[in-house]
Amino acid sequence: MIGPLTIALPDWTADLVDPGRAFRSVEERMQLAIALARENVLRGSGGPFGAAVFELETGRLVGVGVNLVVGHHNSVLHAEILALMTAEQAVGSYSLRADGLPAHELVASCSPCAMCLGAALWGGVRRITTGATREEAMAFGFDEGPVFPESYRYLERRGIAFHADVLRAEAKAVLELYQDQGGMVYNG
Amino acid sequence: MIGPLTIALPDWTADLVDPGRAFRSVEERMQLAIALARENVLRGSGGPFGAAVFELETGRLVGVGVNLVVGHHNSVLHAEILALMTAEQAVGSYSLRADGLPAHELVASCSPCAMCLGAALWGGVRRITTGATREEAMAFGFDEGPVFPESYRYLERRGIAFHADVLRAEAKAVLELYQDQGGMVYNG
Repeated sequence: MIGPLTIALPDWTADLVDPGRAFRSVEERMQLAIALARENVLRGSGGPFGAAVFELETGRLVGVGVNLVVGHHNSVLHAEILALMTAEQAVGSYSLRADGLPAHELVASCSPCAMCLGAALWGGVRRITTGATREEAMAFGFDEGPVFPESYRYLERRGIAFHADVLRAEAKAVLELYQDQGGMVYNG
Repeated sequence: MIGPLTIALPDWTADLVDPGRAFRSVEERMQLAIALARENVLRGSGGPFGAAVFELETGRLVGVGVNLVVGHHNSVLHAEILALMTAEQAVGSYSLRADGLPAHELVASCSPCAMCLGAALWGGVRRITTGATREEAMAFGFDEGPVFPESYRYLERRGIAFHADVLRAEAKAVLELYQDQGGMVYNG
């Protein structure tokens, strides 16, 4: 029961990531999150969700994630969770607000669920940028958990800005792709 | 950035866990969660929080967790997250409601934060039993995130019961012990 857990992103994610590249615009950042989500569907490695963490000002890529819940037998492994975990490993701290660090942004192909909103707060990002909406995810059968208008205000009071609807149609198209391929909607 | 992450519970947790034991009463279950929290403070391995997952009817122990955030450079690793992850590994599914499984319970030494409430929903537990309250945690400086009365009602509508205030004084005492030892309150 208490042996170590190993969490590994699929090998193909390395093909999408050019560590030297600066993702200057928010659209470039979202394109990466959507590409991660789409490839995750096409490769059959998980649900239709991708996310990444960037330095807010420079656009330097710090962490990436895709949904790995079913394959890893691990309900926690949403794309945003992986992006935050890998970013924290990269900076060597449990907080992306640690002393000396620049501001960081979480970019997610779909509006984060209740768990991931909480995780983004503890991870210390300064902005959350999203593509497909909560309502669109729910229309495809994905539960988003207990998220309310007051949830966003709570995070805003903790210094987190929200930037919604970035490349929303392209992000929603990945949910449609997953549905067309007969992808399992768990926790629906 | 995308190398594998390894998450390992401290070796001492094995000393607290007798895999053959049935934890029949809710108080016995909470005593284990509190013992995990207390040892985590005394050994300096993390924050003052412990949790475990049990089969609801039999009391069979399925997963355990302690807070490992600071040492692992990983803001996601709250005690409840580890307990859910290890339980899912043990049953071999991303859901503790998978076909053929009995009902499971998450027992946490302190009321779960927003992230962990969401995680408990995705993990598929049927009951959440808690010791110290949200208000007590916040009085010690721990932020609990965007959790509202409606959050609990949302989970109740998804078939999760709540059992609060079990051995509450003993659970709160671990928060006091952590404070007395000068433990760092991050995300405060």
